[in-house]
Amino acid sequence: MTDTATTTPAIRYYWEDLEVGSVIALGEVTPTREAILDFARQFDPQPFHLDEEAARASIFGGLCASGWHTCAMAMRLMVDHFLRYSSSQGSPGLEAIKWLKPVYPGDTLRLQHRVIDRRPMRTRPEVGLVRTVWEMFNQRGEQVLHMEGWGMFRRRTPGTVEDDAAPREAD
Amino acid sequence: MTDTATTTPAIRYYWEDLEVGSVIALGEVTPTREAILDFARQFDPQPFHLDEEAARASIFGGLCASGWHTCAMAMRLMVDHFLRYSSSQGSPGLEAIKWLKPVYPGDTLRLQHRVIDRRPMRTRPEVGLVRTVWEMFNQRGEQVLHMEGWGMFRRRTPGTVEDDAAPREAD
Repeated sequence: MTDTATTTPAIRYYWEDLEVGSVIALGEVTPTREAILDFARQFDPQPFHLDEEAARASIFGGLCASGWHTCAMAMRLMVDHFLRYSSSQGSPGLEAIKWLKPVYPGDTLRLQHRVIDRRPMRTRPEVGLVRTVWEMFNQRGEQVLHMEGWGMFRRRTPGTVEDDAAPREAD
Repeated sequence: MTDTATTTPAIRYYWEDLEVGSVIALGEVTPTREAILDFARQFDPQPFHLDEEAARASIFGGLCASGWHTCAMAMRLMVDHFLRYSSSQGSPGLEAIKWLKPVYPGDTLRLQHRVIDRRPMRTRPEVGLVRTVWEMFNQRGEQVLHMEGWGMFRRRTPGTVEDDAAPREAD
């Protein structure tokens, strides 16, 4: 259904297509000062996200984006460049978020994702799990964000109990 | 400085005040349908966050908030009810986010946080680390969000090398 609707692109990535070791580039985003302030006013009104002077006096050295804004921008890139072409069924959560460097207005942030593990989902034979690392870098090549967790993706071919008990390398 | 400015409230929670086992209630929020759509349009334009019909056909059973929106709403409660009264110096990241149940328009979400560990910060004697669990529940008492991680807080009294080598129970 989703892959025939005109507004929804065809699915390129099913669970089987997400091989361990594969890296996908997920585009870039450049947050403006106004976007950083908007997000902070709504969701994270701490002085170093709202006020230049307070930010200069903080450990960040200047006005910087809320870490949650950085995650939300990464999510948008993920949807635009990957999830909308995938059989994604959502995610149960993440096992790590690291805000490694502050994100400042005008920084250009590049995202990539790397598949590091996958396995069938025992309770839903039509779905498989994929463990992914997302890495975001600024224009100086410094990593600003690390995220890691499992996603659920529909399979091209539902598994059987026998398949799913086989070693992963056989997938 | 921050505790004398008229717009910044006095600091009630320094590192020493955040005792292991303490629980702090962080208020509630009720996202509207419009707020859920707004966030999704900006940061997470997946069909089940934007379109009622697509959402009904999904595993969520109805239009629901982006998990990142749930995190951002939790952050706002944290800032309003805790961080602005604390000596917080930010967070290096989280070690777990679990989106346990979907959040639907009109749900009333209550947040609390629990201190589960703390320790001095070796590299910055004026700062201590606090490990916290945040739990968000809906109006039916179901937990919708679990987050866990370390925060950095200024200490009332900077530590010495000797203090910080002592058992934690002695803090």
